[in-house]
Amino acid sequence: MVAGDPVRQVQAPAIFNRIFQRHGVDAVLVPAQVPAAHFSTFARAVLGADNIQALWLTIPHKTTLVDELGRMDTAARVAGAVNAVRRGADGQLEGALFDGEGLVSALHHWQLAPTGQRVLLVGAGGAGAAIAVALVAAGVSELRVRDADPGRAARLLQRLQAHAWPASGTGPRLTVWDGHAPLNDVDLVIHATPLGLHADDPLPLEVADLRPGAAVVDILMKPQATPLMRACAERGLTVHPGFEMLVQQVPDYLRFVGLPELAGTLAQDLSEVRRHLMTAPPG
Amino acid sequence: MVAGDPVRQVQAPAIFNRIFQRHGVDAVLVPAQVPAAHFSTFARAVLGADNIQALWLTIPHKTTLVDELGRMDTAARVAGAVNAVRRGADGQLEGALFDGEGLVSALHHWQLAPTGQRVLLVGAGGAGAAIAVALVAAGVSELRVRDADPGRAARLLQRLQAHAWPASGTGPRLTVWDGHAPLNDVDLVIHATPLGLHADDPLPLEVADLRPGAAVVDILMKPQATPLMRACAERGLTVHPGFEMLVQQVPDYLRFVGLPELAGTLAQDLSEVRRHLMTAPPG
Repeated sequence: MVAGDPVRQVQAPAIFNRIFQRHGVDAVLVPAQVPAAHFSTFARAVLGADNIQALWLTIPHKTTLVDELGRMDTAARVAGAVNAVRRGADGQLEGALFDGEGLVSALHHWQLAPTGQRVLLVGAGGAGAAIAVALVAAGVSELRVRDADPGRAARLLQRLQAHAWPASGTGPRLTVWDGHAPLNDVDLVIHATPLGLHADDPLPLEVADLRPGAAVVDILMKPQATPLMRACAERGLTVHPGFEMLVQQVPDYLRFVGLPELAGTLAQDLSEVRRHLMTAPPG
Repeated sequence: MVAGDPVRQVQAPAIFNRIFQRHGVDAVLVPAQVPAAHFSTFARAVLGADNIQALWLTIPHKTTLVDELGRMDTAARVAGAVNAVRRGADGQLEGALFDGEGLVSALHHWQLAPTGQRVLLVGAGGAGAAIAVALVAAGVSELRVRDADPGRAARLLQRLQAHAWPASGTGPRLTVWDGHAPLNDVDLVIHATPLGLHADDPLPLEVADLRPGAAVVDILMKPQATPLMRACAERGLTVHPGFEMLVQQVPDYLRFVGLPELAGTLAQDLSEVRRHLMTAPPG
């Protein structure tokens, strides 16, 4: 079950039910439109049914349950948000956030392995936080974070140092980017703010400051192409649309509901999901 | 959503999802396995989602919610059981019981219109009570009720007189049948007890006492044919399997979830449901 409010725009049922059908899995993903005030009650009640494996969450529910979860993965803890909750063997609710891992998998899909790269992350909200955790885990050499609220960027860096630091101890160089320091040494830019959603939004960064070999990913889903993507393309920069981040999360969701074998055999399905999201970008 | 415990045997999702698919209705019926102790919480939470129209109930949940319902139809009130609950416009839970109407529709399907008939009902439990309400509403001239517990039969007759009496005032002759009075004036027998489910069960009535023109309906679903059906067939009596009662309820369920147009165009679908239930009789 995937819960949101609204939920009509959510593409997950179309995507996952086609996968279940093709692979002969006796499961169905059902959308539930649940008001925020009712969501905690709803989630606990639904996860009390013996044949409902998990609840997948979209806006506004990704942050609602966080304080009630017994267990969370690191990305969820740092971002304060979850993509999915389930009931653990001991009855406790456990949550996971896949956005960041999805973005790193997308980078590999584009042959942009992030290990050792200098990365600028624009946006320190929930999505940005999830991505930051995954980039640290993937071994970037440097992570600069920009946010319209510099305090929010600094707090994200603190949470990364508290929760997401590699066991080895040698993490990346972490800095808050003030918007003025030069960008010509950045290898990769990830854009994770809503800027571009409205026609009169400014660009989230000055594209002209990037070096010609830099790659850009814009996780804004609409409009396609986004204003940032168009500006990068005009300048001849390599630019990628963010919905690949969603494509690459499909196996994560399947593993979370106990279908790891299925998660491993999805090459054809992911091509189809990619085509589906190109023609119906998620809201 | 249809809730039971267990729920694996329930045929409703296969039946209704095929109907939704064929008619292009954007809806899905999902089974939920819910422990009885958790059911009240579950039902209220699920019906709080804006896109979940109703909850359909099977064993053991048909009786669980009855005391919490704001509104019930007459059959539900007399039987103390519901097949379906939904949230009314004012937020109150409302329930309905379709078993009895389904049985009367099945009688019409077999061209056994019950109006003016003398009927023996064997079994005064939930199913028997639902059927009794519908038979009174259909204008039977006489209703004799037998139950292994004569007190239970008498209480059913009292509830019928209190709740189900026709507005005109001229209801049928109601009696508790003691198992000894002659049966040779009975037109129609409805069997609504579990007798026959186990191999060593006695027959629920002495078939030899029925007159040759009498018709018999056995609503016991398994085994098919039931012992009573076999005994009737051996004696040359007209006998019908009870799953037609389920077939004929399909439109009731669709009307309950706000799909009256669909409920009116099901001739082909009901033939298919009939074939489905013949090959996979419900538990």
